[in-house]
Amino acid sequence: MPPHANLKPQLNAAEVDVFLAEAFPQLNHHDAQHDAAAYQTIEVFPGGCTVRLNATERHLRPGGTVSGAALFMLADIGGYVCVLSHAGPDALSVTTNLSINFMRKTEAGPIDGHCRILKLGKSLMVFDVDMVAGPGGETVAHAVGTYSIPPRRARNAVK
Amino acid sequence: MPPHANLKPQLNAAEVDVFLAEAFPQLNHHDAQHDAAAYQTIEVFPGGCTVRLNATERHLRPGGTVSGAALFMLADIGGYVCVLSHAGPDALSVTTNLSINFMRKTEAGPIDGHCRILKLGKSLMVFDVDMVAGPGGETVAHAVGTYSIPPRRARNAVK
Amino acid sequence: MPPHANLKPQLNAAEVDVFLAEAFPQLNHHDAQHDAAAYQTIEVFPGGCTVRLNATERHLRPGGTVSGAALFMLADIGGYVCVLSHAGPDALSVTTNLSINFMRKTEAGPIDGHCRILKLGKSLMVFDVDMVAGPGGETVAHAVGTYSIPPRRARNAVK
Amino acid sequence: MPPHANLKPQLNAAEVDVFLAEAFPQLNHHDAQHDAAAYQTIEVFPGGCTVRLNATERHLRPGGTVSGAALFMLADIGGYVCVLSHAGPDALSVTTNLSINFMRKTEAGPIDGHCRILKLGKSLMVFDVDMVAGPGGETVAHAVGTYSIPPRRARNAVK
Repeated sequence: MPPHANLKPQLNAAEVDVFLAEAFPQLNHHDAQHDAAAYQTIEVFPGGCTVRLNATERHLRPGGTVSGAALFMLADIGGYVCVLSHAGPDALSVTTNLSINFMRKTEAGPIDGHCRILKLGKSLMVFDVDMVAGPGGETVAHAVGTYSIPPRRARNAVK
Repeated sequence: MPPHANLKPQLNAAEVDVFLAEAFPQLNHHDAQHDAAAYQTIEVFPGGCTVRLNATERHLRPGGTVSGAALFMLADIGGYVCVLSHAGPDALSVTTNLSINFMRKTEAGPIDGHCRILKLGKSLMVFDVDMVAGPGGETVAHAVGTYSIPPRRARNAVK
Repeated sequence: MPPHANLKPQLNAAEVDVFLAEAFPQLNHHDAQHDAAAYQTIEVFPGGCTVRLNATERHLRPGGTVSGAALFMLADIGGYVCVLSHAGPDALSVTTNLSINFMRKTEAGPIDGHCRILKLGKSLMVFDVDMVAGPGGETVAHAVGTYSIPPRRARNAVK
Repeated sequence: MPPHANLKPQLNAAEVDVFLAEAFPQLNHHDAQHDAAAYQTIEVFPGGCTVRLNATERHLRPGGTVSGAALFMLADIGGYVCVLSHAGPDALSVTTNLSINFMRKTEAGPIDGHCRILKLGKSLMVFDVDMVAGPGGETVAHAVGTYSIPPRRARNAVK
């Protein structure tokens, strides 16, 4: 299934990352002293986005592979970027559930999360993410999740 | 359903935390300069365990609530402690999937993950976690997951 | 975690089954010629319920065990009974997602689904189900799911 | 992500349906008196398959939409066809978990499950399914699941 090309993003990748840096400083706070952010938005396109984790030693778990929590964060950020870019930059959208499968171990390095919006409703967005790494471009993990989108009135109120 | 009381743990909480500190230094590496570890094992009992996240400002997401990734890590560590304590201290057990629901926002502070082993097979362990916080002891998140347990021969080989 | 005892059911088990027989005739339609319904509500209590599948040969899959779809239906009905009994008898509440783990094979016979409401919000209810069968009362499957509850105005309109 | 084109199916769609009719008579047993089976395999291709549910009145739930259990069965059969066609026709492969999201209501009629194998290991297969229906070809549900594949020795023994 291709992404829903009839959806129109309101923000591009650079705009999303500017928003995230301000609203979610914890996301890349360890990287103030590094050259590159751990999590970044590569692309926003109609019906989805691509996000990247530049995994380093601190993202590893026993066995020298990228930890489940680091991949969870990549998937969760992918969904967040989908919401922010397609439903509007409301920091208070929250994940209601996320189911993740880990398929292959992967070493430190870039991991791309290819995200599709499966449904964009008024109050809920469902998305999935293929997380791909390595020279062969293998899927290392896959996640499906739901974001709750605050009502627009409340949204204006809280900002 | 009560935990499977016929299961017998091989390690207690203190032994698990000693193992984790050596095998998984990334888990609490930010806390070398703090008084307390972010993630710790409170109790191991037949058929389950209790783990705790001492959430601080760096575990928060937009809205001032504990992030999904921090709660994912609590759930994942809960499963890991179940495996380590009941199937033996093999660092190479890995999560194959985890499904998490976020029910309530929660502020910084202690969050306890009450973990049950739903099945302990030769190669797979299924567990669930109630994550509870706050004065009223409300469930803030719930997760179910599966760990893959390496075959014993491989286990001996890698250690 | 015990069920949320502060929740108050509005319908008891018999009332739920009367409602289901009318609103959801497909649920037990094969059983018009049998003595007992395949799916029935055993108990409704504050914060949860118990539902039962009386599994027969037609619920089996290859290997002679109860099929995943039959257990899915037990879990899904358990959530539906939680919604109907605690949020009011609105047939149009729908499952938004459900994650199920299958732990042990089980033969034809009664399987009880012990359901807890993990969260009852205005528009979403989260629940889990321990599915237990056999002489030893072993957990054969476990599910976590979410129901979407229609807004009350719409609810009145559609009935 | 495209399906894993380097995987090679061992059975085609017609061969899978012959196998299913014998090994899993319950799947379409209601349809002996009808013209068409409810569940059928449309296509097997390298790295995946397409399965179809011809939903009729008996697959509906309150609100006149196809029930979650019928869609669960479509997803589960999609995974089973992936295993049977790519890992060999062993009836005793079983689902270990399945997570399903319901995105849109859908009426009676054909619903196609487009299945991808995300990982085919020695003992586990991970797959996902886009379930698509209606004139616009909208995704009505999405599932991710895992099948446990019996060891080959046991497989020969049980057959």
